Amino acid sequence: MADTGWSSCARSLKGVILDMCGVLYDSGEGDGVAIPGSIEAVRKLKASDLKLRFCTNETQASRDKFVAKLQRLGFDISVEEVFSPAPAAVAVLKQRGLRPHLLVHDALLPEFASVDKSDPNCVVIGDAADNFSYQNLNEAFRVLIGLEKPVLFSLGRGKYYKEMDGLSLDVGVYMKALEYATDVEAEVIGKPATSFFQSVLNDMVLQSHEVMMIGDDLVNDVGGAQQCGMKGVQVRTGKYRPSDEKHPTVAADGTVDDLAQAVDMILSQRC
Amino acid sequence: MADTGWSSCARSLKGVILDMCGVLYDSGEGDGVAIPGSIEAVRKLKASDLKLRFCTNETQASRDKFVAKLQRLGFDISVEEVFSPAPAAVAVLKQRGLRPHLLVHDALLPEFASVDKSDPNCVVIGDAADNFSYQNLNEAFRVLIGLEKPVLFSLGRGKYYKEMDGLSLDVGVYMKALEYATDVEAEVIGKPATSFFQSVLNDMVLQSHEVMMIGDDLVNDVGGAQQCGMKGVQVRTGKYRPSDEKHPTVAADGTVDDLAQAVDMILSQRC
Repeated sequence: MADTGWSSCARSLKGVILDMCGVLYDSGEGDGVAIPGSIEAVRKLKASDLKLRFCTNETQASRDKFVAKLQRLGFDISVEEVFSPAPAAVAVLKQRGLRPHLLVHDALLPEFASVDKSDPNCVVIGDAADNFSYQNLNEAFRVLIGLEKPVLFSLGRGKYYKEMDGLSLDVGVYMKALEYATDVEAEVIGKPATSFFQSVLNDMVLQSHEVMMIGDDLVNDVGGAQQCGMKGVQVRTGKYRPSDEKHPTVAADGTVDDLAQAVDMILSQRC
Repeated sequence: MADTGWSSCARSLKGVILDMCGVLYDSGEGDGVAIPGSIEAVRKLKASDLKLRFCTNETQASRDKFVAKLQRLGFDISVEEVFSPAPAAVAVLKQRGLRPHLLVHDALLPEFASVDKSDPNCVVIGDAADNFSYQNLNEAFRVLIGLEKPVLFSLGRGKYYKEMDGLSLDVGVYMKALEYATDVEAEVIGKPATSFFQSVLNDMVLQSHEVMMIGDDLVNDVGGAQQCGMKGVQVRTGKYRPSDEKHPTVAADGTVDDLAQAVDMILSQRC
């Protein structure tokens, strides 16, 4: 790898935040598959003096079910360590007294069980995958265009993610579609929103310069973390593409082959 | 209506171009319904000394079938008078030696019968309606992202249109979705592309300042025609919304209740 000096800052690190899909595992049929070395890398981080959190834009499952899947794959992860957009969205909705029309994956619906969904006055979209039918997108559009003050929440703004059979469109694509149709700018809940990263830092009781984010998404993981004041390192797994290393606006603090290499470099600087 | 002076220019007019859906008829179940007075308005224009053409972004049917529907509704229209995006797209594809992956309405497929669609090296999207499933959009995305030089054609860039049961998302929304996913800018074939309006003017053998466009879409009909040097008049039927009259960037040369009123005003100036 090209070490651009990021690992030397590992000495002053107090915490690490890991993206999940594309860093820990590749999604696909069933539970997907763990990326080689990543289970052991998480174990090493947990055995170190670094604080560790996981930060995902996963919205195809409730957080409980999602963590259970990672546990089945062999990862030592608990629900309390995982930050995902749906619980954050529920908090925002309740705080602002908003009643959502939901366009999300069926498996995400339990996260919103406690939210009043009658007579909707906003729209929430997640990575709905096959639920992004023409009819469902049109229904969300009609709700928005019928509101005096339309409010659209998007659980992330990713373009696509990697599944075992190829790349798949993510929620950001449908966010752009609804933004164009309605002339409304979506409020993003999840990465790369600074408020989302900040809530993870608050939970770690750390300052942003003390923490490194490791992800496969250059814009949403690396760029989002950098906007927040953290170091951002990209792995060459998951949705990584070689063109990321020549991106016009976002440059990672480092690029590594995979999580195992990143963790070995971080920990070797701390001995 | 607020006559902003446009009808006084009617004396120098030599031709009129009419949008179809939302001006002549409202679409919906079956053939849809003619807008009151529009059949007679077309008859009056044809009886005048003005040249008349029809210009639509309709891509849910082949031009033949579409014109047959209008004839069933009672309009005096022939295929040669109607300009629609699919025949224009076929010409562009053949000219540039491109083989399309099509994401269009099933009923539009016959228009592309003469085009080589093997081993696609571009994507063409139209108003595919229910064919805009997640799976189909993802397939188009995968074709584009797999091309060394991705080319995306969009048959129009409309946001939505009015059906009898409410507003429905148009092709432009899915164009924006694919543009965001792939970082490719679509080439628009149809309104508001200047090349499309120009092909209609060429067929009329008229200069742009001699022609008026009448449509219900402020941006794509009125704004597109004005960009091309024509007068653009909006009707308060179809997808018209009162907020159009306060649009930040496009101001119609005139706004009328419906086509019947527009035609009566034009013809009264010519007596």
